[in-house]
Amino acid sequence: MKKIILLLSIFISIISCNKKQINLIDATQFSSEEKIDSTNIKQFFNSVLTEGKSYEWLRDLTSNIGGRLSGSPEAAKAVIWGEKLMKEVGLDSVWLQPVMVPHWVRGEKETARYTTNGIEKNVPICALGFSVATPKEGLLAEVLEVKSLEEAKSLGNKMKGKIVFFNRSFDNTLINTFKAYGGCVDQRVQGAAVCGEFGAKGVIVRSMTNRVDDYPHTGTMFYGDLPKEKHIPTAAISSRAANILSADLKKNPTLKFYFKQSCKTLPDAPSFNVVGEIKGTETPENIMVVGGHLDSWDLAEGAHDDGTGIVQSLEVAYLFKKNNIKPKNTLRVIFFMNEENGTRGAKKYAELAKLNKENHIGGLESDAGGHTPRGFSIDANAVNTTLLQSWKKLLSPYGLHDIDKGGSGADISPLKGENVTLVGYRPDSQRYFDYHHTSTDTFDKVNKRELELGSASMTSIIYLMDKYLYSNSPIKP
Amino acid sequence: MKKIILLLSIFISIISCNKKQINLIDATQFSSEEKIDSTNIKQFFNSVLTEGKSYEWLRDLTSNIGGRLSGSPEAAKAVIWGEKLMKEVGLDSVWLQPVMVPHWVRGEKETARYTTNGIEKNVPICALGFSVATPKEGLLAEVLEVKSLEEAKSLGNKMKGKIVFFNRSFDNTLINTFKAYGGCVDQRVQGAAVCGEFGAKGVIVRSMTNRVDDYPHTGTMFYGDLPKEKHIPTAAISSRAANILSADLKKNPTLKFYFKQSCKTLPDAPSFNVVGEIKGTETPENIMVVGGHLDSWDLAEGAHDDGTGIVQSLEVAYLFKKNNIKPKNTLRVIFFMNEENGTRGAKKYAELAKLNKENHIGGLESDAGGHTPRGFSIDANAVNTTLLQSWKKLLSPYGLHDIDKGGSGADISPLKGENVTLVGYRPDSQRYFDYHHTSTDTFDKVNKRELELGSASMTSIIYLMDKYLYSNSPIKP
Repeated sequence: MKKIILLLSIFISIISCNKKQINLIDATQFSSEEKIDSTNIKQFFNSVLTEGKSYEWLRDLTSNIGGRLSGSPEAAKAVIWGEKLMKEVGLDSVWLQPVMVPHWVRGEKETARYTTNGIEKNVPICALGFSVATPKEGLLAEVLEVKSLEEAKSLGNKMKGKIVFFNRSFDNTLINTFKAYGGCVDQRVQGAAVCGEFGAKGVIVRSMTNRVDDYPHTGTMFYGDLPKEKHIPTAAISSRAANILSADLKKNPTLKFYFKQSCKTLPDAPSFNVVGEIKGTETPENIMVVGGHLDSWDLAEGAHDDGTGIVQSLEVAYLFKKNNIKPKNTLRVIFFMNEENGTRGAKKYAELAKLNKENHIGGLESDAGGHTPRGFSIDANAVNTTLLQSWKKLLSPYGLHDIDKGGSGADISPLKGENVTLVGYRPDSQRYFDYHHTSTDTFDKVNKRELELGSASMTSIIYLMDKYLYSNSPIKP
Repeated sequence: MKKIILLLSIFISIISCNKKQINLIDATQFSSEEKIDSTNIKQFFNSVLTEGKSYEWLRDLTSNIGGRLSGSPEAAKAVIWGEKLMKEVGLDSVWLQPVMVPHWVRGEKETARYTTNGIEKNVPICALGFSVATPKEGLLAEVLEVKSLEEAKSLGNKMKGKIVFFNRSFDNTLINTFKAYGGCVDQRVQGAAVCGEFGAKGVIVRSMTNRVDDYPHTGTMFYGDLPKEKHIPTAAISSRAANILSADLKKNPTLKFYFKQSCKTLPDAPSFNVVGEIKGTETPENIMVVGGHLDSWDLAEGAHDDGTGIVQSLEVAYLFKKNNIKPKNTLRVIFFMNEENGTRGAKKYAELAKLNKENHIGGLESDAGGHTPRGFSIDANAVNTTLLQSWKKLLSPYGLHDIDKGGSGADISPLKGENVTLVGYRPDSQRYFDYHHTSTDTFDKVNKRELELGSASMTSIIYLMDKYLYSNSPIKP
């Protein structure tokens, strides 16, 4: 290991010599530095597990505000809540960053049903974000079941006047459930655009979940370049309903499916990112961000998606202050607005960062739920990836073993650049798609210890990044 | 890595030359063998995640039988259930192993209350296993709060006529919650024995949990050598009630606490371990066991403790059969009876194994809940410990990183011996003591994927142990 560290240090020194900053990790000092790091990391965990705040913050947000879809009154309340809370934690400065966001509303609760073999079956359904409404009286049509966008396209004009039913289920053999989600979500996002083109009347999509249950999962969709007259209504149905419908279609291929929804997209609405920071003690012009998204879907309280992410992000700053550890670089906490349907907050933040010539050296996002910690996903250059991976022995006592190359998160990825080290927090993914975007994403699904261990895990990597990435980054004059 | 494997192989060969069996791991073949192993392990995971049975088995056990304390009619039903299920899975042989078990019954629901400052407070309480009853009219006395057995002993005769209240809480900074449990459980197990000696009237103990909530957690206690007339009633109170009582005692040290329970210990009852096996193809006289315990506490359904352990253990055999992998050694699945209050089943099994001169080469126990997999704890000689740890790269893709020396489990540890490799399955521990021994240990707390990943994790290590431990074990003539 010593050899690897030495090689790493030499490698870093070679790279760094081309830059302005030569404050290297000193290999001869690493061992004693590691001891300090190990002690500080332990202290983050000790304080969060005895005096953590995130759980009660989350209880407050989910119980007293609840679901907070962009443009909604609840999202506006959440902005005020976030600003007040950041000030209470005592960040050096807190501000709101205005951003116009899409404003889609669900309207009345959706209904769906069909009759087969003389039996009427009600179907748990919910409109997808950005979908248009059905006609007021609802929509009734025969159903064509497909497993993919390609299969749908191959139907061509056969789908005219029909409802297309996308029913490709999660590949449950994938251990990382986000991969299973990634392998299915095109149906939800693009299904209506593909089928609207060919004159389908509507699109229903199997819910994005590993489970077979009765909860429809909403989520965003896009019509893309499709002209308005080709926009067709689209909705998710529960996974169990999808299984039953599929079986019924085999017996009765001409059954007619009915659904009704009254959602619509209103004009863009004013909203805000909530931003707060602790000024850096050595190079305050270098910025590290940590964040999640403040908006959520409307069907529940947005507990795991992404209430946990924002309270953990703020707890990172809280744990720095609580333990009297001052970041060298400026530590900025961001509650992004509108991740779910537009990522306008993320885009606005990156746009302003560029405009103001801010020097971002790193970022961490928590938007994968509040379950037990597993590790981090690194989107960085080779040197910094190796550097982050060298911290495994500091992090593994806390269950943080998976420190791999990969994406970071939708809200911080617009900050990507050669010298920006972006990291996604990766808790255990097994339960995430039980709740994701559905009516069960409520506070009671969050375990206090798991949430807090996540906060301390995030604080630990931010602490290490703040201490060691610094040396690799160009300093502005 | 290659170098390590080579060194390991040489080491194993040196050790093994002293034994009868010389069928070594061939270092030159290891790489291609590893490929086979990796494929087989992947196949275990694939099949459990698509065709797993454990979740529905557990639903059946918890819903249709429920809590099954040793000696109860439910425990008797569970034995029949287990035998039938093992036969359905198609094990080569299934039998019941008679064992006499303690038969403690809770009686009527316990009550507790006290009045302070004119306000009467009801206290969530439950008798501890093996406790005697209070007098019929209940027990009323002043309370002395202590944090440890030592502190209690130091009170000596001051506790005469009093209720001693043990209130040392979990150390929540311990990442592994089992360590926190280990640091507190002496209060529950020995509290009444220590205080009965000095003439206390009763003992109440803070519940064994990381949480602050309203559920009392039962569990076993022992009077040890104490003469019967000194046996005093003892119960657990909820952690929140413990906090409130402690605060009230500071304001009003002479408040009187009342509790009433009607539990009693009946004569020992007949019961059974349920045992089934797949005969080994090469050395059937060598036995590997995998098991959990069939009995549970009576307050709930015994879902995580230890319903998950037994269905996972049987699923190991199911996954071998399903994937047409035949163990070289005999694979024996055991549903142990009476782990919770006596471990009589475990003792009986080990006693018979010795009596029948059975050659046990290894064992795996799942009795730490059905949460997401983290690894295994190894109780084995140095060579086999190193061997098991060398499988990390095969197991880590499934989140199995923690493969450390440690204990195995209460039911298999009586099989311990120089050449017996005992392993405890170690799922994530964060949520376990939310439910442990309390009324919330119900089926809905078990996640299907987490349970199934556990089954496949267990199958994988049993597969590797079966394949590679074999070479290290003495063969009977």
